[in-house]
Amino acid sequence: MVVKRAKVGLIRVLTTSDRDLLELHGKKVMSWFPELEVVSRCIPDQPEGIHDDTTEQMAVPKVINLAEEFESEGFDGILVSCAGDPGVSELKEVLSIPVVGAGRTTACIALSFDLPIGVLGITDEVPVGMKAVLRDRMIAWTKPSGVTSTLDLMTPAGRSNTLNAAEELKQKGVKVLALACTGMASIDVAPLIAKETGLIVVDPLKAAAAALWAVLEQRGGN
Amino acid sequence: MVVKRAKVGLIRVLTTSDRDLLELHGKKVMSWFPELEVVSRCIPDQPEGIHDDTTEQMAVPKVINLAEEFESEGFDGILVSCAGDPGVSELKEVLSIPVVGAGRTTACIALSFDLPIGVLGITDEVPVGMKAVLRDRMIAWTKPSGVTSTLDLMTPAGRSNTLNAAEELKQKGVKVLALACTGMASIDVAPLIAKETGLIVVDPLKAAAAALWAVLEQRGGN
Repeated sequence: MVVKRAKVGLIRVLTTSDRDLLELHGKKVMSWFPELEVVSRCIPDQPEGIHDDTTEQMAVPKVINLAEEFESEGFDGILVSCAGDPGVSELKEVLSIPVVGAGRTTACIALSFDLPIGVLGITDEVPVGMKAVLRDRMIAWTKPSGVTSTLDLMTPAGRSNTLNAAEELKQKGVKVLALACTGMASIDVAPLIAKETGLIVVDPLKAAAAALWAVLEQRGGN
Repeated sequence: MVVKRAKVGLIRVLTTSDRDLLELHGKKVMSWFPELEVVSRCIPDQPEGIHDDTTEQMAVPKVINLAEEFESEGFDGILVSCAGDPGVSELKEVLSIPVVGAGRTTACIALSFDLPIGVLGITDEVPVGMKAVLRDRMIAWTKPSGVTSTLDLMTPAGRSNTLNAAEELKQKGVKVLALACTGMASIDVAPLIAKETGLIVVDPLKAAAAALWAVLEQRGGN
């Protein structure tokens, strides 16, 4: 049986000409869901990505442009691979194909387990999309000390501080940990945290990919 | 590389000695997620399943028994394959492994898209777990006329009334359709509705499987 694979446009919110980095998330998604064909594109002129309100505001119209481009080329769905969900709420008004952002979907998957949720990110605030979904089910959140970018996560100190932060949330009664940075998916830290703490850990890229797969696989298969 | 598959205990809430029927949902889950090993068991003495409050109350302690049995045998997660989520809220208090119910997770996946949601079921009320998650994001719900069991869905009239009901929800402004009966997963009606209406359709078994996979795959892989 020949099954047409559903086509997903994946948007990276940092500018890179390094093909391996650009396609890192998309290749992971395809390894999990071979039914999906993922094409990755990045926004222009933001080599440092999104790291504050100004850079987020700059990114939004660029994300919208890329998403509209994907839709006009016949793609079946859009994955914005950033827990800040830049452009996602704007896009749902203008596109007719499903759009998921990594922040909102991570919060939704975390909510599935109906247990107290903690958020672990690298920014000073919980991303707004996650907050809107979690409401009073989020009982605590934190960021690892000394970590302000995903690069910091990769050092031995960053790794150890990330585990400490997760343990701290566990002590506060958290049962489900929502990771609020797709850089944490890049370095695949969720299994490590799950193993060390015993918490249910939601990886943001897996969450977004799973939500999109759940509604696209059936389209691709028909 | 040898990867240990995560073991999922899947609970059917109707009593059957027909192995194909018993394993129908579990086999679908394994076809989607080969990383999961799914064992299906059904509650005793309810050949007609759950169809009202009394039969639901009868089922709850039986679901809890089966889930505790799975946990004691070393299973990694539980999937209660019923949109009524019987026993699910009780189980999260007593088990230390993740538990998903098809109703709640369908609602959570539907919520991911941040669009107006409609619920299509076969009962007179929206399942409470779904209602609790969807709150004001559910703008409409209905059931197909003449359909009171999943058997009715399989007749030509049932199929046609199901499509009419979905179309009716679409006319009310629904953009995402959450299916509130795992019998709809058995007969794989989601792709048909998606194709005919253009709505984003969430299949309850896919939703539950995807949510559990998102947090279990990493455990099995380590």
